[in-house]
Amino acid sequence: MVREFRATVWRMLAAVLLALAGVLSAVPAAAKGADPLPSWRQGSARTAITSFVAAVTAKGPRYVAPADRIAVFDNDGTLWPENPVPFQLAYIIDEIRRRTPDEPALAADPMVQALLAGDVATLLAGKHHDGLMHIAALTHAGMTVETFNASVNAWLASARHPKFNRPYDRLTYQPMQELLRYLRANGFKTFIVSGGGADFMRVWSERVYGIPPEQVVGSTAQSRFEMRDGRPVLVKTLDHLFIDDKDGKPVGIQQFIGRRPIAVFGNSDGDKAMLEYGTIGNPRPSLGVIIRHTDAAREYQYDVNPKSSGTLVEALKDAPARGWTVVDMAKDWTTVFKEP
Amino acid sequence: MVREFRATVWRMLAAVLLALAGVLSAVPAAAKGADPLPSWRQGSARTAITSFVAAVTAKGPRYVAPADRIAVFDNDGTLWPENPVPFQLAYIIDEIRRRTPDEPALAADPMVQALLAGDVATLLAGKHHDGLMHIAALTHAGMTVETFNASVNAWLASARHPKFNRPYDRLTYQPMQELLRYLRANGFKTFIVSGGGADFMRVWSERVYGIPPEQVVGSTAQSRFEMRDGRPVLVKTLDHLFIDDKDGKPVGIQQFIGRRPIAVFGNSDGDKAMLEYGTIGNPRPSLGVIIRHTDAAREYQYDVNPKSSGTLVEALKDAPARGWTVVDMAKDWTTVFKEP
Repeated sequence: MVREFRATVWRMLAAVLLALAGVLSAVPAAAKGADPLPSWRQGSARTAITSFVAAVTAKGPRYVAPADRIAVFDNDGTLWPENPVPFQLAYIIDEIRRRTPDEPALAADPMVQALLAGDVATLLAGKHHDGLMHIAALTHAGMTVETFNASVNAWLASARHPKFNRPYDRLTYQPMQELLRYLRANGFKTFIVSGGGADFMRVWSERVYGIPPEQVVGSTAQSRFEMRDGRPVLVKTLDHLFIDDKDGKPVGIQQFIGRRPIAVFGNSDGDKAMLEYGTIGNPRPSLGVIIRHTDAAREYQYDVNPKSSGTLVEALKDAPARGWTVVDMAKDWTTVFKEP
Repeated sequence: MVREFRATVWRMLAAVLLALAGVLSAVPAAAKGADPLPSWRQGSARTAITSFVAAVTAKGPRYVAPADRIAVFDNDGTLWPENPVPFQLAYIIDEIRRRTPDEPALAADPMVQALLAGDVATLLAGKHHDGLMHIAALTHAGMTVETFNASVNAWLASARHPKFNRPYDRLTYQPMQELLRYLRANGFKTFIVSGGGADFMRVWSERVYGIPPEQVVGSTAQSRFEMRDGRPVLVKTLDHLFIDDKDGKPVGIQQFIGRRPIAVFGNSDGDKAMLEYGTIGNPRPSLGVIIRHTDAAREYQYDVNPKSSGTLVEALKDAPARGWTVVDMAKDWTTVFKEP
C-alpha cells in the first residue's frame, strides 16, 4: 500500500517534471523570440501554417489530439529538388554507369543503351513504360535489401548534384526541415508519402529528415524471403509493384498509415489526390500546402511547365477553391538550402 | 547573443529535467519494487525477457540504440486468443448473420450458406480457398473505410466470446499487455505483425494495446480512391491482396517497417519465418519468444495440434537450437486475462 502510494507520488512528480520540461522547451521558441521557422518570411503562407498549428494544439473548438496530428510530405520537389531529374533516377543512371564496365550483358542491353544515351522516348514507350520498368528491375531487384542499402549509401557518399555540386542529401530545403521540426515539436507525427521508392528513401530518411523508415510511404514491391546458407535474407523483386503517386497516395496513406492526415504538403499534380483526401470532408481541421517552384536563381522555376516531372497545373487551379496555401519559393523563403 | 544564450540555458535545463523525469519514472518500476511484469512468474521465460531488455538498454557490448529497438508481436494467439475461431472470423460470421435477413441475395449465396452451416470443407475447397475469399470479399470489400470501421466497432460493442462471455477486446492476455508497456518503457517501439486484416485491427489497436494504426502490419489489400458527391472516399477492395503470414511476415516487416526487429513474439508456425528473420544472423542482439498454449483450464490447450489454427510444430522443434524462449502459459503466467 505504502509502496503503491510512493510509486504513484513518483509518477505524479515525474509527470509534472515532464510537463514542465515540455513547457520550458517550448518557451524559448514561442515567447523568447527564437523563431522556429527562421527561413520563412512573414506573409500569408507562413501565417496559414503557424495559425493552423496554433489552432489544433490549443484547447478550443479546433483542437486535435496529438495522436491524430498526422502530417504527410511528398519528397521530390517538396522536401528536396527534383531537377534536372528526380534524384532516384540520378542514382539509377549512376548505378548503371558504374556497373556496365564489369557487366557486358548489361552494357549490351538495348534499354541500358537507351538510358545512357538519354533516349527517354524509348524508355517510356508502351503503355507500361516497359523500358523504364526494365531499368528499374535491373537496379532495384535481384539483390538483398542489405546490398541495395549499401549501394544507395555508397552513391550518396560519392555523387554530386550537377547544378549545386553538393551531395544530394545536402540539398534538402532548409525551410521544410524547419517545418518538419516545428510540427514534431507541436506533437505532429511526420510521414513521407512519395512516388519515390520506399526502400530508396528509408536508407537515409532518419538521418536526413529525422523521419524513421516506418514513417516512409513510397512506391513498394514485395521482397522474397529466402534462407541462404542457413541465414534469412530478403531479396528485392518488382512483384506486386505499388506506385505511390496520384490516386495511389491516399491509397498508400490508408494502407501504410491507416489514418487520415490533417496536414498535407506537396508540390505537383501527383499530390492533388492526397491534398483532397486530407482537406475535403475531413472531420478534423486540416491544412493543405503546395510548394511552388518559382525560383530560377536559387533553385528552379518550372511550376506550371506541363513537361517537367513536377507538373503543377490542376492542383494549382484548384488551390483557391480548396483553401490550399501556395508557397512561393522565391518570395516566401529567405533561404532555400542550408549553407554548407 | 544574450537571447541565444538564454535559449540554450532553457534547453539544457529542460533536457536535465526530462532526463531526471525519465529516471524517476523508471525508478519505481526497477528499484522501488513495483514489478513491471506482475503476471509473469519467476522462471526462465521471464528471466530471458528481462535480461535481454537489461542488456540492450544498458551501455555495454549488447547495447542497442532506441531507434533500433523494434519489437514485433503476432496478434491471434499471442496477444489475444484464437479459439474457437480467430476473432476476425467470428466478426465475419456475425456480420453475415446480421445482414442476411435484409439481403435476400446474400442469403441465397451458396458460400454464405456453407459458412452459416459451418461447412468449412466447402469454404476451403480449391487451391485459393475460393469460398473463403468470396466471403472475405462480401465482408471486407465494396464499402468505404469509414463504413467498415463503424461495423467493426459495432460488433465489438455487442458480440461476446462463447467461452468467456466477454467482449472480444477484453480478452487480451494480461501478461502480454504488461510486456508491451514494459518494452515501451524501455524505449522499444511495438508493432503488430499479424495474419489478420490490418484494417480490422487498426480500428481498436491503439485503444486496446496502445499500438497506433501505423504500427499495425497485417494482411492488406488496396483501397480505391473515389470522389463521391465531391468528397474523397476510399473504397475497400481485395485487389493486390497481401497475406501477412509465414514467409509473408518478414516480407511485410520489410515493406511496412523497413527495419529488422530485435524482439519477435509469436505462437505458431505462421510466426516461424519472422522469428528466423529477427534472430538468425541479425547483427544486433535479439530475442525470439513463442507463447505456448498449454492452459486448458484458463484458456485453451492446443499448442501442438496440427489441426488447429495456431499449429505449433516446426517452430517448437527449432526453438532449442535457435535459442527461442518458450513461454508455457499454464506455468509462466499467474493471470491470463485481467479480471473484469
